[in-house]
Amino acid sequence: MWHDTYLRTVLRPDYDYASEHLLPHLFDSLTAHAEMLAAMGVAHADEAARHLRELRADPFPPYDPLIEDVFFTLDRRLAALAPEAAGALRTALSRNDLDMTIYRLSARQRLMRAMWRVLNLRRAVLDLASREVDTVMVAYTHHQPAQPTTLAHYLTAVENVLARDTARMFGALARVNLCPMGAVALGGTSFPIDRDLTARLLAFDRPVENTYDAVSASDWQVELAGMITTASTTLSRVVHDLLLWASRGLIGLEDGLVQGSSVMPQKRNPVALEHARTKFSKAIGGAQSVILSCHNVPFGDINDPGPDMQPPLNGMWQDFREGVELLTVSLNNPRVDREAWLREAQSGESVVTELADALARQDGRGFREAHAGVKIVLDHLHAQGRPLASLKAEDLEALNLDLSETELRAALDPAAFVARRTTYGGPAPAVMRPALDLARTRLDTDLQQHSDQTTRFVGSRTSLESVGAGIIKS
Amino acid sequence: MWHDTYLRTVLRPDYDYASEHLLPHLFDSLTAHAEMLAAMGVAHADEAARHLRELRADPFPPYDPLIEDVFFTLDRRLAALAPEAAGALRTALSRNDLDMTIYRLSARQRLMRAMWRVLNLRRAVLDLASREVDTVMVAYTHHQPAQPTTLAHYLTAVENVLARDTARMFGALARVNLCPMGAVALGGTSFPIDRDLTARLLAFDRPVENTYDAVSASDWQVELAGMITTASTTLSRVVHDLLLWASRGLIGLEDGLVQGSSVMPQKRNPVALEHARTKFSKAIGGAQSVILSCHNVPFGDINDPGPDMQPPLNGMWQDFREGVELLTVSLNNPRVDREAWLREAQSGESVVTELADALARQDGRGFREAHAGVKIVLDHLHAQGRPLASLKAEDLEALNLDLSETELRAALDPAAFVARRTTYGGPAPAVMRPALDLARTRLDTDLQQHSDQTTRFVGSRTSLESVGAGIIKS
Amino acid sequence: MWHDTYLRTVLRPDYDYASEHLLPHLFDSLTAHAEMLAAMGVAHADEAARHLRELRADPFPPYDPLIEDVFFTLDRRLAALAPEAAGALRTALSRNDLDMTIYRLSARQRLMRAMWRVLNLRRAVLDLASREVDTVMVAYTHHQPAQPTTLAHYLTAVENVLARDTARMFGALARVNLCPMGAVALGGTSFPIDRDLTARLLAFDRPVENTYDAVSASDWQVELAGMITTASTTLSRVVHDLLLWASRGLIGLEDGLVQGSSVMPQKRNPVALEHARTKFSKAIGGAQSVILSCHNVPFGDINDPGPDMQPPLNGMWQDFREGVELLTVSLNNPRVDREAWLREAQSGESVVTELADALARQDGRGFREAHAGVKIVLDHLHAQGRPLASLKAEDLEALNLDLSETELRAALDPAAFVARRTTYGGPAPAVMRPALDLARTRLDTDLQQHSDQTTRFVGSRTSLESVGAGIIKS
Amino acid sequence: MWHDTYLRTVLRPDYDYASEHLLPHLFDSLTAHAEMLAAMGVAHADEAARHLRELRADPFPPYDPLIEDVFFTLDRRLAALAPEAAGALRTALSRNDLDMTIYRLSARQRLMRAMWRVLNLRRAVLDLASREVDTVMVAYTHHQPAQPTTLAHYLTAVENVLARDTARMFGALARVNLCPMGAVALGGTSFPIDRDLTARLLAFDRPVENTYDAVSASDWQVELAGMITTASTTLSRVVHDLLLWASRGLIGLEDGLVQGSSVMPQKRNPVALEHARTKFSKAIGGAQSVILSCHNVPFGDINDPGPDMQPPLNGMWQDFREGVELLTVSLNNPRVDREAWLREAQSGESVVTELADALARQDGRGFREAHAGVKIVLDHLHAQGRPLASLKAEDLEALNLDLSETELRAALDPAAFVARRTTYGGPAPAVMRPALDLARTRLDTDLQQHSDQTTRFVGSRTSLESVGAGIIKS
Repeated sequence: MWHDTYLRTVLRPDYDYASEHLLPHLFDSLTAHAEMLAAMGVAHADEAARHLRELRADPFPPYDPLIEDVFFTLDRRLAALAPEAAGALRTALSRNDLDMTIYRLSARQRLMRAMWRVLNLRRAVLDLASREVDTVMVAYTHHQPAQPTTLAHYLTAVENVLARDTARMFGALARVNLCPMGAVALGGTSFPIDRDLTARLLAFDRPVENTYDAVSASDWQVELAGMITTASTTLSRVVHDLLLWASRGLIGLEDGLVQGSSVMPQKRNPVALEHARTKFSKAIGGAQSVILSCHNVPFGDINDPGPDMQPPLNGMWQDFREGVELLTVSLNNPRVDREAWLREAQSGESVVTELADALARQDGRGFREAHAGVKIVLDHLHAQGRPLASLKAEDLEALNLDLSETELRAALDPAAFVARRTTYGGPAPAVMRPALDLARTRLDTDLQQHSDQTTRFVGSRTSLESVGAGIIKS
Repeated sequence: MWHDTYLRTVLRPDYDYASEHLLPHLFDSLTAHAEMLAAMGVAHADEAARHLRELRADPFPPYDPLIEDVFFTLDRRLAALAPEAAGALRTALSRNDLDMTIYRLSARQRLMRAMWRVLNLRRAVLDLASREVDTVMVAYTHHQPAQPTTLAHYLTAVENVLARDTARMFGALARVNLCPMGAVALGGTSFPIDRDLTARLLAFDRPVENTYDAVSASDWQVELAGMITTASTTLSRVVHDLLLWASRGLIGLEDGLVQGSSVMPQKRNPVALEHARTKFSKAIGGAQSVILSCHNVPFGDINDPGPDMQPPLNGMWQDFREGVELLTVSLNNPRVDREAWLREAQSGESVVTELADALARQDGRGFREAHAGVKIVLDHLHAQGRPLASLKAEDLEALNLDLSETELRAALDPAAFVARRTTYGGPAPAVMRPALDLARTRLDTDLQQHSDQTTRFVGSRTSLESVGAGIIKS
Repeated sequence: MWHDTYLRTVLRPDYDYASEHLLPHLFDSLTAHAEMLAAMGVAHADEAARHLRELRADPFPPYDPLIEDVFFTLDRRLAALAPEAAGALRTALSRNDLDMTIYRLSARQRLMRAMWRVLNLRRAVLDLASREVDTVMVAYTHHQPAQPTTLAHYLTAVENVLARDTARMFGALARVNLCPMGAVALGGTSFPIDRDLTARLLAFDRPVENTYDAVSASDWQVELAGMITTASTTLSRVVHDLLLWASRGLIGLEDGLVQGSSVMPQKRNPVALEHARTKFSKAIGGAQSVILSCHNVPFGDINDPGPDMQPPLNGMWQDFREGVELLTVSLNNPRVDREAWLREAQSGESVVTELADALARQDGRGFREAHAGVKIVLDHLHAQGRPLASLKAEDLEALNLDLSETELRAALDPAAFVARRTTYGGPAPAVMRPALDLARTRLDTDLQQHSDQTTRFVGSRTSLESVGAGIIKS
Repeated sequence: MWHDTYLRTVLRPDYDYASEHLLPHLFDSLTAHAEMLAAMGVAHADEAARHLRELRADPFPPYDPLIEDVFFTLDRRLAALAPEAAGALRTALSRNDLDMTIYRLSARQRLMRAMWRVLNLRRAVLDLASREVDTVMVAYTHHQPAQPTTLAHYLTAVENVLARDTARMFGALARVNLCPMGAVALGGTSFPIDRDLTARLLAFDRPVENTYDAVSASDWQVELAGMITTASTTLSRVVHDLLLWASRGLIGLEDGLVQGSSVMPQKRNPVALEHARTKFSKAIGGAQSVILSCHNVPFGDINDPGPDMQPPLNGMWQDFREGVELLTVSLNNPRVDREAWLREAQSGESVVTELADALARQDGRGFREAHAGVKIVLDHLHAQGRPLASLKAEDLEALNLDLSETELRAALDPAAFVARRTTYGGPAPAVMRPALDLARTRLDTDLQQHSDQTTRFVGSRTSLESVGAGIIKS
């Protein structure tokens, strides 16, 4: 009946994908539709709901090239059991609204899973940060040593971005979790139906308002692509730094996350992080497929943002999830070489900002002059081939700069540098610890919200799949 | 001093871009910083604020290849006027936090402008929809005539997506409108400062919590890129349909929006829409530059998501704004050929869903059977070379289908088809009109929120640029 | 040994992918390496080659979480059979050069397959064009009717672009078909080896010159991504037009390529074309993953453009191949409504360019004046509500334009319009037929070149897998 | 006449862009067209050619909102001077073929410029490589120290990729340098014209064969986007490594390519490289705009791959050119810390591959066993906290490994490691020097080819713009 090429490239892979990923959502949607019809008094609709609950427990049939898709496979099975129920179920129903409902249920589930990974990563980052509040490191700007800070300060910055990603995810969820059911082909139906009831049974927030919008819109899928892209770019940046630190031995991954070489016996490659990087690149690339599928196509029911987009969307979610997981396990228990990091801070020139600050405080000429003064000091040392650590108060005096030896030593101490940075949001342990507490509280709130939604979505599923459940009352 | 190539490819274009686009934000940020320092008791900081207000009124100097950028240009001018004030101003200040503040102020302004264009487009779409509530059209699915609906139904679907885009924009604004000031290079400072005050003076919602995050994060820029991409893909779909309708003469643009041909005298090309399409393609492409600039780079202060990204971001905003404007003017007053649209609905077979619905209601065998019955009817007509309009009750009777001639005529009338679709969100004028009222109310709410924020942001600017304004009290 | 997460997200999927897609290339590469070593006099290398030929015939072991990858799985099996042979095989061998060789062999094969599909599509397009040399259609520019041309003219333009795509593919093949073997980890080896021989055995054109380049470069993969993107954008444009024509009934797909609707009984959706569109969108999206994986990563041996990129590359190839196949079957035997196309050409104004040409020829005032004259004629007709077909010589005379009735009728005849366009490359059947002959000759040349290369590559495989084959002489 | 919004967002920026970038190509194309018409005997065409040569020398008029574009501006100026010449010039001419010709001429010029930058970079890379043939460095794989090689080996690998990019560019040139003139609107003309002559006058290789193809195809633009993407990804990888080396002090940029900090006095940021990175990111992003503009649009004359795409294409070329220039000046004269690099090679374990090779050679048990043996050696040393350099022959003996002290010392010497890698394409100076000679010869060939083409293209321009030049004979 269908052309071989069409069977091989479209119908069969669609069936396989739906069989593997979408059947629970198909059963949920149809069962809710049947219950809604029953509540509206459509004859045999209650039977349809009952049979759907039973059929769900059976193995789903393998691909049959004579049947178009999973919907018609189920339709035939139901018709074989109870023709009137099958007829009733098709009332005010189209694959258009049904498919969009399924894709939204699927996206909702994947979004919840992705959030869960992000929440776990936030916890891992905060746990590590809590252990490294006093770990002085040199922060780099423009690829050069800049200033001492702490590993906790860096990590908490990462967590704060991820908290914003979580907020984006909850925002997107509110636009994903809308119900297309009842839009039928595009214009609703001449049968009386209750779109609110169907939406409620499926734990949607509400119906998609306009029925044409319900079967046509792709904005919610592109938003998800953008959200994943946003989080992935940030995490690609973090992975960059972790790999840089690993290449210098400042951190190390546990044995289960490294691989060796077939030719170089000494190798312990931090491959978990390297693969995380590509997972994020691929997640962004998957997002591009989603964007392109929604570009310059009709605004109406078409395949592009429908079945055809589900596999790339799924790949995008999977790459993102796995990238986050690889990063999380890498941060769960890394080896941190605190001494090496401190040595770098002590041996370089990254503390001189504090020297300028100290000079500015001392002589009241302002930071602008102090900054220029420190440049002269560094030129003076470089000309003599001396490291910054060798600087003495008498060197300063010779250059008409006024700072006591005690103050100088304090200014050149990386730990003191950090301890003095008590600005709101700064690295000083005194402000870092309460900042961590605040971050943890915020994380707990997000975890609670995630848990509440999960409970709600799981509750809907349970109620729709339980054989013997009565008609849910509106 | 700098290499010719570096001057030509980096420093000079950066200066030119900043001079054209960023100076007001530079003055705002520095003035707010000076006022904060003054409130903290830093000597000469009040002078700095006063001088900045005066310097702002002067023409900004042209490019001087001996000075690095606009910041140092202003720093030197201030130092020439009042060295102590210039020194004071540099306290607890780095170009790192300053630049990120400027980019956020710039993004805030562009986001507000983009929203304004979207709000205007929503109004234009709703206005047109209000005039076309009774305009029957054939909606296409999968590029084939599907069902009658109304132009108002289609347009309201579009507006509903744009309302979700507006929600995304307000969501993004909450993450853009955070203040990096006080992060200095990355770790705050050892001077006492009040980051809350600076944030308040600049009408930010609050400081970016972590100072490392403040100078490093690019998530808010990638989110904006994703948001523009989301809106642009939807609008590219709408433009597709409008161009299709224009190519069939169903709609026409006003004279000021068409162009002719140098060789084909009959041409009246709907070029405003065609250019809108490319503007959206380019906006999405500009978003790619933003994404790529944040990909696999260090998480810390670097140029990629800083100065280097501002021109592509600006291009992205401009392309998006102009695309929306071209679409808005195209929809303000198009010619709509209602008769042609109705003729298409009457002459094709797009009404047969209602015929199936009618049969399903009539004989109670369910929609599944009715659908199969209508297929037989169509085969019957096609075999005789007859159009659907020629169908009679007796044809149905011959095929064992039962519908009176009156019911049949009603089922085949496109306007009746539409009028019966009173499902929540459907095209029937009876439900379309209240839906339009609801949409208009939501638009008014969004307009009010936009206006409130604008007032707030403009108020901050006014207060920071007014010569003679006193120190703002915390 | 490895972390569960690492096993699940990296090692196992890599093994599964390699098992399904890469084993023949693995055996080919190792066998060629063994033969080269044997030719260099390395003891036991000939045994290794022999055992590899035997092992290839056995089922490959299923995944074992204790073994890193397919290479070490094979290494262990060989060592169990013949420890010295296994030891010899590892001489001057690293997974770095081995993997890159495998990926190039895989890319070569996929490129040849993609070319084959493109060559088939070119044939289908030319076949259809040959049947439609006299089929007058209205070509659109800027979404408006522009000028009459023929379907063959349009189709031949498409084929000509595809011929350039073929040239790009052969160009890319020359850069893909280079052999990394012998680069070992990155710097070659201190053992004497013959890289030319290995390359020859594997039917590569020659070794990759520099060994660091051999294990590091990703340019050839990004070139393939760009090549697929180029072809896919063109084909997306062609699909746009085919779907537009299908939506207007000008063409129709055969039954095996359309799908119906669960709710709209009249629907015959040209879904093969719609899915082709998304396949091309996804191919371009897959190309993005490739690009991103090579962006801002080290230039050296890393996983990103290595194993991690193979699945998205494979997806890109598959989507492209399937898109081309769907398009090819859609064009093999479409229904073309020649009468409807001719009616459109006769009833509109698309012929007026020829009217201007005729006037320009007649009065010698030049095309500029003639174009202006025709605009006046059209205004005159529109003002009277008359179609172009009603134009008479006397109308022209009244507007001071001079053309006999005979000339006027000829100018307004679409078929005559086309017949006169005998410009090199134009639609007139008189020039179209030889152009088609030329295109067919070029296609034959490309088919021959493809066939020659295929023979060569298959020959290498045959020789490397034949049990009992002797050492191939250099 | 045109809507304000349309003037502001489309017509005026198009005019400004064309005025700045496209006028010489416009004059070239029209002059060549006029000369072809004159050669065909069209009256007044020779006058048109003469007037175009004169008008070209005058300042081009500023924007006039009453005139559509630069073409009509010139058309009016010519008509004011010589109405018959203006009329003649419009014969067999459309903006469709004219614009595509202009865009191809522009692309040809930009492509030649880009190649020139790439050729210069190749020269700079080879010059540096020639100076660093003996500079031992540790090559990293998977972000970990892998093996000693030389800076020349790395750099030559980079040059080799760029040589392939050059080949891609010449390949693309062959598809860009085809002439659309004579296609007129899309179907040629009923006037006799000589497309070969016009092509020859403009130094095109030949006409675009099919006239519909001539005004419709975008493949050549997308190919350029892909080519730039390919080169940019490679260069982004090289920049990654250079920045990494700069961050560790292994290389340093000259003073004119670094910038300091407003707050950290010690900073010398290698910003030329950092900006090069973003230039490449933006070039890839610009390429995306090109791709998107050609996606899912009609295959025919439209604005998307026409005027609308020229500014993003131009931005893509500029970003790419500037990125290459910044990289070139960074590599012209960098500070290379050869001692630091050698120290790293001597102090780590990157030489142990050679130790395994030496063991494999010694005892004949094959590399597989030797590799395992070295792992045991390393475990032995690590357990005792000893560096590799402390390894003695007696340690090996204790572990049942057999190597003399002399052989051991040789195996552990990085310079000896390199010197032994004389594999074709390896780092040993003995093979590196001839490889460099070969690369230089290839570069010279490419430079010559570039120069020949430049001469040809400049010759066409000269002949078309010279006032007083006679009609060029076919």
